[in-house]
Amino acid sequence: MREVCVIGCGMTKFGELWAKSFRDIFVEAALKAINDGEVDKIDSMYVGTMSSGLFIGQEHIGALMADYLGVAPIPAVRVESACCSSGMALRMGFFDVASGNSDIVLVGGVEKMTDGADVTYALASAADQEYEVYQGVTFPGLYAMIARAHMYRYGTTREQLAAVAVKNHHNGALNPNAQFQREITVEQVINATLVADPLTILDSSPVSDGAACVILASEELAKSLKKPLIKILGSGAATDSLALHQREEITTLKAVRVSAERAYKMAGINPSDVDFAEVHDCFTIAEICILEELGFVEKGKGGLFTEEGHTSLEGKIPVNTSGGLKSKGHPVGATGIAQVFEVVEQLRNNAGKRQIKNAKIGLAQNMGGTGASSVVHILKNVND
Amino acid sequence: MREVCVIGCGMTKFGELWAKSFRDIFVEAALKAINDGEVDKIDSMYVGTMSSGLFIGQEHIGALMADYLGVAPIPAVRVESACCSSGMALRMGFFDVASGNSDIVLVGGVEKMTDGADVTYALASAADQEYEVYQGVTFPGLYAMIARAHMYRYGTTREQLAAVAVKNHHNGALNPNAQFQREITVEQVINATLVADPLTILDSSPVSDGAACVILASEELAKSLKKPLIKILGSGAATDSLALHQREEITTLKAVRVSAERAYKMAGINPSDVDFAEVHDCFTIAEICILEELGFVEKGKGGLFTEEGHTSLEGKIPVNTSGGLKSKGHPVGATGIAQVFEVVEQLRNNAGKRQIKNAKIGLAQNMGGTGASSVVHILKNVND
Repeated sequence: MREVCVIGCGMTKFGELWAKSFRDIFVEAALKAINDGEVDKIDSMYVGTMSSGLFIGQEHIGALMADYLGVAPIPAVRVESACCSSGMALRMGFFDVASGNSDIVLVGGVEKMTDGADVTYALASAADQEYEVYQGVTFPGLYAMIARAHMYRYGTTREQLAAVAVKNHHNGALNPNAQFQREITVEQVINATLVADPLTILDSSPVSDGAACVILASEELAKSLKKPLIKILGSGAATDSLALHQREEITTLKAVRVSAERAYKMAGINPSDVDFAEVHDCFTIAEICILEELGFVEKGKGGLFTEEGHTSLEGKIPVNTSGGLKSKGHPVGATGIAQVFEVVEQLRNNAGKRQIKNAKIGLAQNMGGTGASSVVHILKNVND
Repeated sequence: MREVCVIGCGMTKFGELWAKSFRDIFVEAALKAINDGEVDKIDSMYVGTMSSGLFIGQEHIGALMADYLGVAPIPAVRVESACCSSGMALRMGFFDVASGNSDIVLVGGVEKMTDGADVTYALASAADQEYEVYQGVTFPGLYAMIARAHMYRYGTTREQLAAVAVKNHHNGALNPNAQFQREITVEQVINATLVADPLTILDSSPVSDGAACVILASEELAKSLKKPLIKILGSGAATDSLALHQREEITTLKAVRVSAERAYKMAGINPSDVDFAEVHDCFTIAEICILEELGFVEKGKGGLFTEEGHTSLEGKIPVNTSGGLKSKGHPVGATGIAQVFEVVEQLRNNAGKRQIKNAKIGLAQNMGGTGASSVVHILKNVND
């Protein structure tokens, strides 16, 4: 396999972008990435989108975006894996370059969720339609069950869940692309409108519009273009049962663990080598479980680890420096590449007020459903 | 890049499969392919599905199918490119094996269209929602415009359009997996219910349920397993404007031509080296245009070429020996892999009553929308 680098990245602000269309926001992010990468051609394109059919009645996203970006007739396809659609799209672009087929690939993610569709119904299509959704449960309810089980089994507290949201809003307040650029407190999280006990609206990521893109190139080409070398050291993906009740134990996110193990193995590193991470905090409990599955802390201790500040900007392993899904926003198909955008910006020492120290190796973990799909990428600044 | 072979294939019967669910039909086809390939493990999986969100309220298809096939936690994603979703999925699986990441990959396609959704609305999501669908045009209307333009520009006749459907029904009558296993006549096609002038219901592919799967392996592994060597010589994909009116000339399917040129180049062959082909005859006019773009006949002569019998089972280049989308059926996400299934069966000399002579090199061309996406694969029996 050829080595693959990220040589450009761009994203829109996340939020309720009512004045911009689905295709507008993709093109905006793509042009930013193309300008950043200073490339004058693209060989192939991959676009992660979760449910544009249900959100806006539009499929055929690869060709649509190639057309509007003005790059047709290049090959372009959409990749769908619920909320990890663009994380998985990155993997497809990675194989395309690694195989030697393409030299320069654009990978993007995009979702337009605020155009009037029934968002809860559309998002529920990531769960098992026959055995979960038909019974009336949607994602807040499913994650609330995981939260209750984690509290019961490991003594995780309500305050520890809230600490995730407080940290991520702190970081998001420093991110000009974030949907919510304001701080919140533990008390505000706990006393906010209850969505599904114990989770409140402030434990939950918002409904968002947005897009993010990266440009991949072979390492050889990246060197010849004199771009900073941000190399993809490892890519791991895994699946699990779609329905939560079919798993052995609902606080264990097996696909996250397996996808991370595969990425660590390909990268030749251990969890302790990771300097910082962007993880899939669609609900506060998700971040806690993911910290455990990625091997940053032992099982059951993710809440305490967060509460003690180890995942803050100054902590031993900063997590979701971008603000995460909670504060930056969660246009579902765009989230995976937006995570990689943040990792690249940190590795380039370009993250402004939220820049962490000694960012050499960053990890991005993107997840679908209640963890039925997970994809992990590990990136390293190899210029030094 | 590593060389890649197809070592197994399987499909369901196509038709109105009311007694079977979306996941049932995928698993049925996947198990057939696994049995045919005699493999006891799969490294990764790609599933082509066009619009399961709109058809049955279910996204997250990669993980769902990995779960129900019992192969989780392997990586599994869905690829969407309208009606060429599974042709594009094959390309993703090809890169995965070619890159050296996976040794054995399952690529499938599946669609369940008869479960009660508004099929015309769902299919229209492959067209430009803002500039075509919103104005009231759907696919029969778009292809009717192409047909009228082809008749005007090149003198293509109503009878020549009908000849495509007659030939494909003849072939489908010999295919036990076909939705319509019966012959039709030119008069029946012309006098059938008008859908969009000049196209009648018998110029149009049907609404279908179905699934098809193939197993890919590196050539090295295929040899060690002593499987017949059906090698993927070339893979080409291309895009064009989604909206028909944005093209320079509406009888020219540029993405088909470019995707074919790319596949021929990778394979190191010319159109005249192709022994037979499966092409995307969603409407009769589509097959005529595609014959021209693939280089089998000069531009404008596709209708006459068909009427003269050159694409029949005994013709100089048999086209749609399976019955094509018209007679075999068109469960949109499944079509691309079902085409490859037919190519592999012909190359193995395993196509029963519709077996052609001297099948050494076969081509599969799968298309989305009115040709905004096209993907071409060229396969060769390399055992001899």
